[in-house]
Amino acid sequence: MAPRMAAFLHLFRSARSSSIQIRRAFSVSRKRTMLSTELTEAQVSALRANKDRLAQDLHHTCQWGYGIRWGDGHTDTGMQRLALSQEDKQVRDWFIATTKALGCRVIVDAMGNIFAVRPGRRANVPATFIGSHLDTQPTGGRYDGILGVLSGIETLKTLNDMGLETEGGVGVVNWTNEEGARFPISMVSSGVWAECIPLEKAHALKEVPTVASLPSAASAPESMKSALKKIDYLGSVPCSYKETPIAAHFELHIEQGPHLITAGQQVGVVTAVQAYRWFRLNIFGRDTHTGTTAFEHRADALYAFSRMMVQAREVAASHGCLASVGIIEAKPGSVNTVPGTVSFSLDIRGPKTELVEVVEAELRQDFDAIAAEEGKGIGKPCRVEWTLDFDSPAVDFHPDCIECVQQSAEAVATDAGIADPKSLVRTIMSGAGHDSVFTSKRVPTGMIFVPCKDGLSHHPEEFCSADDCARGASVIMQAVIRYDRKRFSA
Amino acid sequence: MAPRMAAFLHLFRSARSSSIQIRRAFSVSRKRTMLSTELTEAQVSALRANKDRLAQDLHHTCQWGYGIRWGDGHTDTGMQRLALSQEDKQVRDWFIATTKALGCRVIVDAMGNIFAVRPGRRANVPATFIGSHLDTQPTGGRYDGILGVLSGIETLKTLNDMGLETEGGVGVVNWTNEEGARFPISMVSSGVWAECIPLEKAHALKEVPTVASLPSAASAPESMKSALKKIDYLGSVPCSYKETPIAAHFELHIEQGPHLITAGQQVGVVTAVQAYRWFRLNIFGRDTHTGTTAFEHRADALYAFSRMMVQAREVAASHGCLASVGIIEAKPGSVNTVPGTVSFSLDIRGPKTELVEVVEAELRQDFDAIAAEEGKGIGKPCRVEWTLDFDSPAVDFHPDCIECVQQSAEAVATDAGIADPKSLVRTIMSGAGHDSVFTSKRVPTGMIFVPCKDGLSHHPEEFCSADDCARGASVIMQAVIRYDRKRFSA
Repeated sequence: MAPRMAAFLHLFRSARSSSIQIRRAFSVSRKRTMLSTELTEAQVSALRANKDRLAQDLHHTCQWGYGIRWGDGHTDTGMQRLALSQEDKQVRDWFIATTKALGCRVIVDAMGNIFAVRPGRRANVPATFIGSHLDTQPTGGRYDGILGVLSGIETLKTLNDMGLETEGGVGVVNWTNEEGARFPISMVSSGVWAECIPLEKAHALKEVPTVASLPSAASAPESMKSALKKIDYLGSVPCSYKETPIAAHFELHIEQGPHLITAGQQVGVVTAVQAYRWFRLNIFGRDTHTGTTAFEHRADALYAFSRMMVQAREVAASHGCLASVGIIEAKPGSVNTVPGTVSFSLDIRGPKTELVEVVEAELRQDFDAIAAEEGKGIGKPCRVEWTLDFDSPAVDFHPDCIECVQQSAEAVATDAGIADPKSLVRTIMSGAGHDSVFTSKRVPTGMIFVPCKDGLSHHPEEFCSADDCARGASVIMQAVIRYDRKRFSA
Repeated sequence: MAPRMAAFLHLFRSARSSSIQIRRAFSVSRKRTMLSTELTEAQVSALRANKDRLAQDLHHTCQWGYGIRWGDGHTDTGMQRLALSQEDKQVRDWFIATTKALGCRVIVDAMGNIFAVRPGRRANVPATFIGSHLDTQPTGGRYDGILGVLSGIETLKTLNDMGLETEGGVGVVNWTNEEGARFPISMVSSGVWAECIPLEKAHALKEVPTVASLPSAASAPESMKSALKKIDYLGSVPCSYKETPIAAHFELHIEQGPHLITAGQQVGVVTAVQAYRWFRLNIFGRDTHTGTTAFEHRADALYAFSRMMVQAREVAASHGCLASVGIIEAKPGSVNTVPGTVSFSLDIRGPKTELVEVVEAELRQDFDAIAAEEGKGIGKPCRVEWTLDFDSPAVDFHPDCIECVQQSAEAVATDAGIADPKSLVRTIMSGAGHDSVFTSKRVPTGMIFVPCKDGLSHHPEEFCSADDCARGASVIMQAVIRYDRKRFSA
């Protein structure tokens, strides 16, 4: 048995044997038996999450808003928990009740962000946070966002069980509407907190009417503010990093890509997030009869769209970038009328901000050329308009956070018992945006990726094994402790 | 002055001078002063519609359901009069009141088709009909369908003014939901009348939820039967050519294409209707995250759709056919989720039934190949499913009807006073389906086309000049009289 394993088992056994007394002691007198800054390096490296408890808690929360069933198992469903829906309210209520029972102070701000803080030894210093989101895509899964928040809860539980006191507090934050699926700016609430998005703009966001699950959407789209009010999560605390400061932000997430799972690796130490821009485009052509209008007499906005989408992939790929269309609407929407108007979303991403700019510039030219060609036969060519909805430049995470995650990942990887455990850990870039993008603008931030099946996310079959979830939770727990020690050991 | 013109003026003047007395006489005692079979050929050739009255009536009916404004003039708007809407009820009520006032018997059948018959001299023989439809596309114009019905009303008025009696009766029919825009089978009610479409299937049709003007559509789509009931047009007469027989069916329509207007010609004698098939297609791929899923790991149903649509035009064009997509829906419909499902309509048309079949066969192969390629990187390629919604083989109109239309068109073309008036008339094939397609399956049928601006239809700016409308109405009136003479002169 490796010395580290022995230390871990010792720690774990003592934590377990005394957990009932400790929990009692904690809830009554907040007495704690160990201090983070007094642990040895080996003791930190031996910290582990409780796999079964984490899995149980995670799937427990998925009772609110479970989605499409894809298998026979009890938990073989996706999730459909749109931000500020009734299901979102239910899981939020659970989050508050659970964190309060674990001894946390809870703050809800004006964007409905929920900050739960387990106090540390020192008063008047901000806590180190674990954060992510409990909302999902309309056809999402059980791990994207949810695992991040639940790893925070699991961390609180483990620290309590062990009676481990930290210097600064340890916080868990649930950010509102990270997905941007219901209210169409993703990460909007961490964006307001970082003072990168004005509160008024966020409050005024109207829900997307194509999101089928919301009966209100089609008739009278609800604003984000009224939706917050309706579920009683419009907090009185201003939404700002100045009002609710945090010392650092760590986020655990499934990779949402195939690199870890393909390479058989366990943990991704995220060093950066790729750049992306979201656009809304409108193509204006001419409605005409499908049966009587020769191709050369058409200004078919949907045909122009099709050529644009084919072109977008080609151009993006040539620069190592991505271009995607998620939303499309063609009007007037009749079988025998050539659509005169098409609206669609365009999502361009790349490892560097400049690459995204290059792809955008090329596509603006190409789309104009495609539009000009469709309808030139009647002297009324199509025309295309771009609106930038969202611009997220590439982000580099903080070296201190990356270091804490790297050390923790390497420590946890030793459990595999292989000769070179570091080979199970890699640095990685995030393709998706996360709330960590906005927190990184104000405080040191780091992220951890764990593998997911087929690299699949935003899909009901999104899957991360209980082992991978627990490994990720162990890494983030250690990273938070390491960061606390780094802050207060000077 | 050409002899024909003199005859015309004579006839017209006498009709006009005596019109008040005739109308009075007609409405009181049904006394008529002339019989169709006793007219000379020159007298038939001199029959003309009243341009101003036709224009006035036509635009009068466009008060119910006028659509998008495109110019400053009083009548410079499109139409949005979806089948069985409140606006459709209003124009139907007008149609019945007007035809009854003109001395017609009116029948409403179980599909809401309205048959108005001006009795002829002989009882117990079916009438010769002028028919078309008063419903429009959601972004339609003032002429498609409407001109056809109004030319029938104008014919009734002119015959009454002149006191012209026919051997068989003269009927005008308004067919329900010709456009198929609200209830997604076009010409559905002439189809039921021809016993080509089962009544139950038609009654069960659900309105298309994308038709924005109907508040009921999004929440609980209405069935055709309940919509008929709601506006009180679910008639008690069974919908069948056996119950409401007609002797022949003539239809006046704008060309909806550029041939007449481009050639400076006045009348198209329609000899045939091209074949077409309507399909609904579903592409099944995989929802994934737009930011983290490399192109080679995607099964992007919308990208596959785009390639299919580009391919469809190429294949159709190579066979002298058309292929069009009017409706598309991509799910789940989120900016940062690659759509896993796309549904779309496909409308294939061609001059011969066999050509449409060839295009379909090629596209089935090509679409399968495109689907197989998208997603092969993950071993989960897209898959495409076809459903045939509607199959309309090519139709040849009846030689007798074509002959009547040809003679009438040539007679009316003499008004231009040019050396070769026949050069203003051409035979033409219809690109669009019309109720005449279904009537032709049961009774002799013919159609007349008049030019429309830019060949444009299914668009608010669809336009046919008052002169062209009147010329078309004169042709159809003559054609009906000629057909009546043909029937009873043997």
